[in-house]
Amino acid sequence: MTAASYAAVDWGTTSFRLWLVGENGDVLAERRSHEGMTTAAKTGFSPILEAHLAAVGAPAHLPVVICGMAGARQGWVEAGYLDTPAPLSGIVGAAVIVPDPNRDIRILPGLAQRAEEQPDVMRGEETQLLGAAGTLGNGNHIVCMPGTHSKWVRLTGGVVDGFSTFMTGELFDVVSKHSILSHAVAEGGAFDGDNKSFIEAVIRAGRNPAMTTNLLFTVRAGQLLHGLPALDAKARLSGTLIGLEIAGALSSARPGSGVCLVASGPLSALYRSALSALGLEPTIIDADDAVRRGLAAAACTLWPA
Amino acid sequence: MTAASYAAVDWGTTSFRLWLVGENGDVLAERRSHEGMTTAAKTGFSPILEAHLAAVGAPAHLPVVICGMAGARQGWVEAGYLDTPAPLSGIVGAAVIVPDPNRDIRILPGLAQRAEEQPDVMRGEETQLLGAAGTLGNGNHIVCMPGTHSKWVRLTGGVVDGFSTFMTGELFDVVSKHSILSHAVAEGGAFDGDNKSFIEAVIRAGRNPAMTTNLLFTVRAGQLLHGLPALDAKARLSGTLIGLEIAGALSSARPGSGVCLVASGPLSALYRSALSALGLEPTIIDADDAVRRGLAAAACTLWPA
Repeated sequence: MTAASYAAVDWGTTSFRLWLVGENGDVLAERRSHEGMTTAAKTGFSPILEAHLAAVGAPAHLPVVICGMAGARQGWVEAGYLDTPAPLSGIVGAAVIVPDPNRDIRILPGLAQRAEEQPDVMRGEETQLLGAAGTLGNGNHIVCMPGTHSKWVRLTGGVVDGFSTFMTGELFDVVSKHSILSHAVAEGGAFDGDNKSFIEAVIRAGRNPAMTTNLLFTVRAGQLLHGLPALDAKARLSGTLIGLEIAGALSSARPGSGVCLVASGPLSALYRSALSALGLEPTIIDADDAVRRGLAAAACTLWPA
Repeated sequence: MTAASYAAVDWGTTSFRLWLVGENGDVLAERRSHEGMTTAAKTGFSPILEAHLAAVGAPAHLPVVICGMAGARQGWVEAGYLDTPAPLSGIVGAAVIVPDPNRDIRILPGLAQRAEEQPDVMRGEETQLLGAAGTLGNGNHIVCMPGTHSKWVRLTGGVVDGFSTFMTGELFDVVSKHSILSHAVAEGGAFDGDNKSFIEAVIRAGRNPAMTTNLLFTVRAGQLLHGLPALDAKARLSGTLIGLEIAGALSSARPGSGVCLVASGPLSALYRSALSALGLEPTIIDADDAVRRGLAAAACTLWPA
């Protein structure tokens, strides 16, 4: 077996992922847990990291590169933001060093868009972009990175010109749990991108985004008047919010840019279906691969072989 | 003092209001409490009503006319819905009788729009419309009734052609309390319609509603990057959702219709300001007056002097 070269960590708000990477770039071991920043801020970041490193048999002095919320103000060590327009190649140079007696631990910064009219921030997605950039190459790209706070990024020749965050995933969650729609969607299980209610909602919100909060109410009224099943109610809620997001992102897109979707699993399939319903055929990049490749690119610059 | 002729009750989800009305139409006494449908469904509707009637010295056989959620399926006695297109004059004929040993108690129905594409319901607002119709007269009107679930109604010569509900107030509430924006708005007190952040948000969402969930995220990013004060954060959240609602309502409005705002108190002032920012100068009708006049119109038909 090849010797370990570094560990790469994607440390989100509610998730922790670690890859042990060998000298030849292969993944030697992987760990996933729910010990995200929220947990680590209470129990300590170092004990969590060391426990996972020990579990994969990492050597005592193995260096570690981290992206994500561990670098937030309320995280481990604040890693600040790189301001847009930001060349992706500048990310690693703005990494901060975590004081540690044994290891070289670095946390990558986020990106900030400071324009008074459109303030925005990301943390973690910049590393996915760094990893995706190798696949995308130069040219103009619009990169969609769906999630709790979906990011749409304008990328030109390796430089992040600007980006917009849409609160799609979080709104789906709070509306499902805390609004009058909770009754209508409560028993709904998993639906996929082929669901008719999902597709219809994407198209309706995409074409007339101004009616969004009315479309949301039709989830409730549809249940009352037409017995709308919970699965379709959930799919309509999701489709409405995703259709709104895509309409918004396209309203500020440059003509002629290719759209790229960086996502994994069921979310990737849902967005692919939604984008297709609105006439877009994106390039698909797996988000897990992208973040790992971005961390690898950073590690190669920090610790050249 | 003139003798009591009937009692009028507006029984909402979380509020109860009762007016004791004299033979000459004057209000002899008024009661307000938080014993809405949610409370009454647990403790019983009749005890709450009788306690308030006793408190204002109502005679034992005084009739009572009720509108609102007391007529919902989960209310006192289900009063069903009148289907659109619905003449306001038909509301009273569809009232249901509450079985009661002493009094003649009637609950007015709601309105339902059963179109598969745009299912919608209202309960209580139809009585406000009945009361407002006297002021509005015939012709084409668009009536805005803001609240937890704002209603925009197309009224033609006393007939409700159709209507749309927007979840504005409820979304403001759940996003303020349960999303990442809760930190940004937590310490914000009351703001008024002159607030600059409110007006700007109304205009931005009104002009480009597709960017709504991005505008919401700028509340958080603005706090992080520019120290956006909590009061302005709250005003921006509110303005964004109200601007979105107005854009949606106008997207389906008939040209040439006059806009009428039926609202009371601070909400009336906020909507007046928002409508004005988007170029509309509505006729203003007080919502409390409107519901009382609507109940009076129903009482006059039910129990002619």
